[in-house]
Amino acid sequence: MQRLKISSERGAYAVIAAAGATADLGGLLDREGVGLPRSVVSDSTVGPLWGAPAAASLDAPLIELADGEESKRWPTVESLLGRWLDEGLHRGDSVAAVGGGVLTDTVGFAASIFLRGIDWIVIPTTLLAMVDASVGGKTGVNLDQGKNLVGAFWPPRLVVIDIDTLATLPERELRAGAAEVVKTAWIGDRGLLELMPTSPINGYASLSPDEWEKLVMRCLAVKARIVSEDEREAGRRAALNLGHTLGHALEAATGYRRFLHGEAVAWGLLAAARLGRRHGVLGADGEDELTAAVASLGPLPSISNIDPKSLRIHIGRDKKRNAEGVGWVLPTDDGVVLDQRVETGEVLEVFGELQQHAASDF
Amino acid sequence: MQRLKISSERGAYAVIAAAGATADLGGLLDREGVGLPRSVVSDSTVGPLWGAPAAASLDAPLIELADGEESKRWPTVESLLGRWLDEGLHRGDSVAAVGGGVLTDTVGFAASIFLRGIDWIVIPTTLLAMVDASVGGKTGVNLDQGKNLVGAFWPPRLVVIDIDTLATLPERELRAGAAEVVKTAWIGDRGLLELMPTSPINGYASLSPDEWEKLVMRCLAVKARIVSEDEREAGRRAALNLGHTLGHALEAATGYRRFLHGEAVAWGLLAAARLGRRHGVLGADGEDELTAAVASLGPLPSISNIDPKSLRIHIGRDKKRNAEGVGWVLPTDDGVVLDQRVETGEVLEVFGELQQHAASDF
Repeated sequence: MQRLKISSERGAYAVIAAAGATADLGGLLDREGVGLPRSVVSDSTVGPLWGAPAAASLDAPLIELADGEESKRWPTVESLLGRWLDEGLHRGDSVAAVGGGVLTDTVGFAASIFLRGIDWIVIPTTLLAMVDASVGGKTGVNLDQGKNLVGAFWPPRLVVIDIDTLATLPERELRAGAAEVVKTAWIGDRGLLELMPTSPINGYASLSPDEWEKLVMRCLAVKARIVSEDEREAGRRAALNLGHTLGHALEAATGYRRFLHGEAVAWGLLAAARLGRRHGVLGADGEDELTAAVASLGPLPSISNIDPKSLRIHIGRDKKRNAEGVGWVLPTDDGVVLDQRVETGEVLEVFGELQQHAASDF
Repeated sequence: MQRLKISSERGAYAVIAAAGATADLGGLLDREGVGLPRSVVSDSTVGPLWGAPAAASLDAPLIELADGEESKRWPTVESLLGRWLDEGLHRGDSVAAVGGGVLTDTVGFAASIFLRGIDWIVIPTTLLAMVDASVGGKTGVNLDQGKNLVGAFWPPRLVVIDIDTLATLPERELRAGAAEVVKTAWIGDRGLLELMPTSPINGYASLSPDEWEKLVMRCLAVKARIVSEDEREAGRRAALNLGHTLGHALEAATGYRRFLHGEAVAWGLLAAARLGRRHGVLGADGEDELTAAVASLGPLPSISNIDPKSLRIHIGRDKKRNAEGVGWVLPTDDGVVLDQRVETGEVLEVFGELQQHAASDF
């Protein structure tokens, strides 16, 4: 069992990695002295696989939300709050979220506003949720106008990483999640690249459970360091957005249907490598290394017929935008440099290069 | 100009009392070094009176929400968030709320979840909002299942008390707000009772502006002390619920149509005086003094035809309830005692006495 501590405005919380933890959640929480959640929330895909054993071990009811990004909306939150009221939950009670980032963002947000905030614990079941969404306290849902425009910083009471849950994760999801591993490696632990599965990742069997656990916990150590310094994303935390400004725009420009989040971030990392080189902050070797790490993930959905005009609009709407425009994170030879002024025209130029390149190379 | 400091998890904030502050809000905020809000939100009643001058002094657009408790719901929040997006508000921007508790609860909640939380300042325009809602950081909206079931602890950046706004407050609202003054006096500053208008309160003219300001700021000093010690209502803050468990049940049992919040609390205080006496924590003189203070507010809406069965149900649903039942706050000779076990049957007995008494006395 490995353990990490994350500081936050609401007090410190732990990340615990323990294979098989889901089916023994009640026992684990007892040993940790954490109160047992009175409701387990999962989605219709993950629920039968991992939500049900968790709920059984807690002797708590299981609520299954509809699967997918479309359910990450207020009506889902409101119906969840209604269920918790029906079940008689009080302020001192807690809930558990078992699933990927879409599910945990939604449940965490609901927990943050139910009776003005109750505790929650999170059991992420995707690689992306493990290395990204589960730590840092960001929760939220989407509005018609865009993703994650409503939410709260509401850290969980505990994060439980059960590496076994990756065994049921589709290969494509695993590869997409690995893009966030590449990003994390670049920001704060370059050695992580050597722990990654050989290319291309062919599912959970690419590594042993111990190796996966090590990979995930080293990613989390990087993220823990960053969010402990800057919970509310005022400065240092921006590093985590490496590859994300373009990534978010790609997702939006394709109606969130073509790319998994990690796949869009992978394209964003490729563009960032070129931009870093153009801005003179990343050497040729660095550009090659970052590009190769992304290539090792395996094939990505095509960017061939994406209209640069639509990308421009979505970059302009970036949530991290301030009155002076969007600040970019660029890769350097030993990390990242924050808040670079990058003209959107230049980004689109680099994107055009990638489109041409992709037509031949990828 | 008087000033108070409130501590909170998000950092300290100030309450400033300055007559005429609303029309000079921009100047006041400049002098305080507080960023100017980019949006002023008020309701259709208060907006023309006090929202408009505030917005004009900030050169910011004024948004008027529908008046009344019915608009303290998610659809209002969502449309407000949409307006802020339309106006291009960023994470670093702030907004201002000008109005009574219903309005400030709604706007504060919207601010707490917009882009995961932006700053807000509050200009309360009712006596109730000044002495109660404006300080302590509670925000929220109602669900079908009950009031304030969704919300956040999200303290404002600054509270501005412009005592002139009470001049346009209906007398009934002023008297209802004064019930919270009586409550506050009993909890932490008995001398406040001597500053209150002579009975019955006949509008703003009952006191001079300076006297009103003194009354409000002394109430806030009591509340500031309590919420600084216990922001999240884990212990000491429960004192503020004196009179509220029955008050909330009376409001709910009459569909929130018969009583203003303060009027229901006034009945709750009368019941609490009797319960304190029955439990041996309040002497006969104390019971008389508290009862007389409530009587001095003037006539209250009748409780004659309220069914005790319906009260029982609503007391059972109290938000501050935990697995062991509802903890009551009882008045003592020198303050309050928290978390008393009071049987609901006993409460209903006392309520029956009040009904009989009221039929003859009030």
